[in-house]
Amino acid sequence: MTRSDVDIAVAGTDPDGDLQRAVEAGGGVLTEPEAASGLVWGGGAPAALNETLVQARRLRWVQLPSAGVEEQASLIDGRPDLVWTCAKGIYGPAVAEHAVAMLLALRRGLHMHARAHAWSPDVVSVPLVRSNGAVTILGGGGIAVHVAQLLQPLGLRIRVVRRRAGETFGAPHERMFGEEQLREAISHSSALIITLPLTPHTRGLIGEGELRLMARGAIVINVGRGPVLDHAVLQPLLDEGAVGALGLDVTDPEPLPPDNPLWTDRRCLITSHTSNPDAWRREQLASLVEENVARFRNGDQLRGRVDVEAGY
Amino acid sequence: MTRSDVDIAVAGTDPDGDLQRAVEAGGGVLTEPEAASGLVWGGGAPAALNETLVQARRLRWVQLPSAGVEEQASLIDGRPDLVWTCAKGIYGPAVAEHAVAMLLALRRGLHMHARAHAWSPDVVSVPLVRSNGAVTILGGGGIAVHVAQLLQPLGLRIRVVRRRAGETFGAPHERMFGEEQLREAISHSSALIITLPLTPHTRGLIGEGELRLMARGAIVINVGRGPVLDHAVLQPLLDEGAVGALGLDVTDPEPLPPDNPLWTDRRCLITSHTSNPDAWRREQLASLVEENVARFRNGDQLRGRVDVEAGY
Repeated sequence: MTRSDVDIAVAGTDPDGDLQRAVEAGGGVLTEPEAASGLVWGGGAPAALNETLVQARRLRWVQLPSAGVEEQASLIDGRPDLVWTCAKGIYGPAVAEHAVAMLLALRRGLHMHARAHAWSPDVVSVPLVRSNGAVTILGGGGIAVHVAQLLQPLGLRIRVVRRRAGETFGAPHERMFGEEQLREAISHSSALIITLPLTPHTRGLIGEGELRLMARGAIVINVGRGPVLDHAVLQPLLDEGAVGALGLDVTDPEPLPPDNPLWTDRRCLITSHTSNPDAWRREQLASLVEENVARFRNGDQLRGRVDVEAGY
Repeated sequence: MTRSDVDIAVAGTDPDGDLQRAVEAGGGVLTEPEAASGLVWGGGAPAALNETLVQARRLRWVQLPSAGVEEQASLIDGRPDLVWTCAKGIYGPAVAEHAVAMLLALRRGLHMHARAHAWSPDVVSVPLVRSNGAVTILGGGGIAVHVAQLLQPLGLRIRVVRRRAGETFGAPHERMFGEEQLREAISHSSALIITLPLTPHTRGLIGEGELRLMARGAIVINVGRGPVLDHAVLQPLLDEGAVGALGLDVTDPEPLPPDNPLWTDRRCLITSHTSNPDAWRREQLASLVEENVARFRNGDQLRGRVDVEAGY
């Protein structure tokens, strides 16, 4: 360990000092960017990050706060001399838990019971455990894998569909790739869980045609990005029973305007982009920073090395 | 296989003929009780079952429809010559799923979002995954084990407390026994899931003293029987924040009267004893009947042999 490997700067958003404490917990010594060999960026405009980078002449490593790095892509491209790490993978478990919570709530009628103020034994409850019909998860990232892991004890058929073959994970599910396979995977499935980011490829990917491939009355959950799902077709498909229930943590537009009829539809459960809540996110980031500072000091491989081409 | 081993009678409740179809699917031949070697009892008064048993002079096996056999205990005691089977174990997965659905919903604020008709980013959402604080499950039966299995991927500390040491299961949890251990297990736990049946021992088992042992703001779920939990203390403990949220599928009294203040408390989610819904229950029972009829024909060991002393 050289002296310089303990000098870490924290810049950008760190309202409660969580990241500074994490640096110290990891054995780092807080310093100004000018003297730092590692920089923990708490978030903020790319221009502000760039300004910090210009000052930091001894820098060798930058930790970014989010999983996606689209905003910082050009900065990363311009500084291939630096090791860049991001928060990929650490938020997946919370988002996956939210998706599964919504799926279970809709199957068991919890959204309807929550709105009732009296004993309501007629609310339909259909256990997911040991049920027929596959659950299809769109997106092959950390969220999808964690959804599959959470559903695994229920004894279901689980299919994960991503655009390209890629990293394989340990989760117990079938893996499918490409657009033809997307339609095949959706067909007759009893639940669809969308975990996709928004890209030119995913915008509007799930519309009327795709939703009609599912089993009648299937449940659709979106914890990815709102515009991946064509919102114009949702109310008509709910009304005719093609879609049985809808769980949205992301919407299009977002926030969903108060006069949108989905707010009062009894088959809908809408949360407010809370699948990865701020407090939890900050806690997870702090714990990653602590670990990576310790690894940096010891010369070990850092967690979350950025893959610029993939965008995370 | 002797001829008599295919002659099966169905008596008691079987409104849609599900059990008759299950007998035939298992390779049985439907017959009157007088000629039957096996009897599938669909439910009804113990006196009616007794009457059927008196007629059935060739009988060797009786299949009962519920998990608990308290009601039929004296009949079972009086006919040790018969093989008695019940539905123990087959309903646990659905009840466990309901308990976990309620726990996740309350942690992620889904009950509050369900009641909102506009974007509500301030609803508190606290992921359960990788959180500190143990989840304590009361009751060592099939429900408790399945709850532990469903929670297992979340990386929590899980404790199952039962009255006596007994059958051990494969679930990944700590096991504790007896009353002293009950208090120890509840202490500082962040969630308590009650799966207990109602017995003289369990009535009022969880009262103010026990609930105050938990971590402040902990969540309490009851999918066992209402009177296990002292309902008189619930509203005061919610109001002072000692209990953070409450998920009840069973109540005391049941149904909970419409003027009970818990119905309008924002921290409560009350379902209507729907953790083991009728349609699902009948389906599971039919599939058990089909399997046991096939086993009976083949002379194989039947599933769900009654343990009279245990009561199931």
